[in-house]
Amino acid sequence: MPDEVILLTEDELRAAVPLTLGAVDTVATAFRALAEGGAVMPPVMSMDLADRHGEVDVKTAYLPDAPRFAVKVSTGFFGNAALGLPSLGGLMVVFSAETGRVEGVLLDNGYLTDLRTAAAGAVAARALAPETVETCCILGTGLQARMQARAAHLVRPFARLLIWGRDRDKAEACAAELGPALGVDAQAVDDAGAAVGAAQLVVTTTPSKEPILRAEWLHPGLHVTAMGSDAPGKQEIEAAALARADLYVADRVQQCETIGELRAAIAAGTWRDSTPPELGEILTERHPGRTAPEEITICDLTGTGAQDTVIANHALEQAGAAGAGRRIAAREGQPKT
Amino acid sequence: MPDEVILLTEDELRAAVPLTLGAVDTVATAFRALAEGGAVMPPVMSMDLADRHGEVDVKTAYLPDAPRFAVKVSTGFFGNAALGLPSLGGLMVVFSAETGRVEGVLLDNGYLTDLRTAAAGAVAARALAPETVETCCILGTGLQARMQARAAHLVRPFARLLIWGRDRDKAEACAAELGPALGVDAQAVDDAGAAVGAAQLVVTTTPSKEPILRAEWLHPGLHVTAMGSDAPGKQEIEAAALARADLYVADRVQQCETIGELRAAIAAGTWRDSTPPELGEILTERHPGRTAPEEITICDLTGTGAQDTVIANHALEQAGAAGAGRRIAAREGQPKT
Repeated sequence: MPDEVILLTEDELRAAVPLTLGAVDTVATAFRALAEGGAVMPPVMSMDLADRHGEVDVKTAYLPDAPRFAVKVSTGFFGNAALGLPSLGGLMVVFSAETGRVEGVLLDNGYLTDLRTAAAGAVAARALAPETVETCCILGTGLQARMQARAAHLVRPFARLLIWGRDRDKAEACAAELGPALGVDAQAVDDAGAAVGAAQLVVTTTPSKEPILRAEWLHPGLHVTAMGSDAPGKQEIEAAALARADLYVADRVQQCETIGELRAAIAAGTWRDSTPPELGEILTERHPGRTAPEEITICDLTGTGAQDTVIANHALEQAGAAGAGRRIAAREGQPKT
Repeated sequence: MPDEVILLTEDELRAAVPLTLGAVDTVATAFRALAEGGAVMPPVMSMDLADRHGEVDVKTAYLPDAPRFAVKVSTGFFGNAALGLPSLGGLMVVFSAETGRVEGVLLDNGYLTDLRTAAAGAVAARALAPETVETCCILGTGLQARMQARAAHLVRPFARLLIWGRDRDKAEACAAELGPALGVDAQAVDDAGAAVGAAQLVVTTTPSKEPILRAEWLHPGLHVTAMGSDAPGKQEIEAAALARADLYVADRVQQCETIGELRAAIAAGTWRDSTPPELGEILTERHPGRTAPEEITICDLTGTGAQDTVIANHALEQAGAAGAGRRIAAREGQPKT
């Protein structure tokens, strides 16, 4: 067996692995696997490099049915802009689940994370949002705001898109890009509360440390996906909202308790002392999801190593099918067969 | 700035980065950095994949004076032998400490771990063993037994080497290899106690889950380095030995308490409730080391992310000087400058 490693660059990955329903279905399998048991997903490993204005996260997960597992390193170095470099970066390394040998190095600079995060938003919307979404509202104006809107549109083809951000110009730019791209009526808005009030599906995609979505804005027939919080200091949803919803769903309880919206709700004392269901339990029907159109649902996405493992498998398969990447003999002294 | 990644294979790394005093000095800087403050080293991330007979460990550390930090993934899949593959594998990914960008992928299949582990043995021996070592004893007969003997000989050029293992044939093979290689009188022995009794420097290099070195074997003028334990179930040194020694030194207290010899001593109730010094505190003279030739010292090496970070920096520099490896444009759409 040749001991080869496939190396894929960001450009190759962007070309071979677009945001499609196939990617969404792939990411859904990660949540299912977490619910079905046998998965191994250790807590996130983090380094806060205060003197470098940087942070490093490592995620991984083994899923019994996946032929490979990924170890992902994500970097955020917030002085990079001054150097003309992106703040976010990182890569995924893909290992055989049978032998532990390195099979792939995905030099994606965070692209696959963006992709699997957007896909998880679509998984959540497909599982929990009302069947009919006329209006989608995005709180946030960054790259992930754009990707979440595109992902949501794959599963809930809304006609109207409302975009709110702290910076009106960025919201305008987002709307100007997404309107034509999705063929929807896209508008930047100043009043987040009114926009949430008009929407059936809301996605929060900010790095906020203070709530940007008020509990009083929740209304019948609304689904909210909060995907910005991924660290202990972050919060997008007012703490009281979680208990006020008919259903609050975590991507992974252990993570949401420590780095998601659930952390803030527990800290505020507004979360009743019970364990919420996980998204995979909804997908596998171990726990009921939305049971009526007028219910209010919230899904808290912190990002899991399981998503990384499935998107890395998907990327290797897609890139392999496209003949992309280069193959490196990892042990050149080995006989080739 | 070109966004390039240097890729090095195991063969290239073996050629460019041998076990030398330079490597030992490099690994010493890791322990110094841990003692000097400012280092960030999260707990080891682990996955135990029982259904695959496999285990995965991730280690990392940021050191203020190192230009890059490494994230290392180590794999052990113990069904590989049946497939004709090595059980151990893995790689190191090297990131700029300034920008977080990926700078190197070291497809070493565990070679650099072997190297930095052996080098740490030499660091411990140089810091703690008696000045004069006539006889060195190795308990264990694997690859690391060989590397520890070579590393020890760099800093304490002993004349006699005694090798004990559960399998006499393997001990003989080890002695037959190391005698000529080091120019010493190397012998396989059956009686571990007698061998320890005759040695001034002992290195234990086994995956044992039960003590192989008895507390009653400790004798004046002995230094023991225990480097086999790196998981909660492992133990090489009888628990009582740690408190019986004049000085017990951890590579990292947090790790030794959970995966080193210290764990077993605490569990057995034989460790007095005090925090032992770390190897870096000895090297930087924050804590006294051996103060007399007749003292008994023990050093517990569990393996640290700090060692990985310094050996990865060293490897990139050595390989760069040798012109080894291939350079990959990690973002091919980027303008090259």
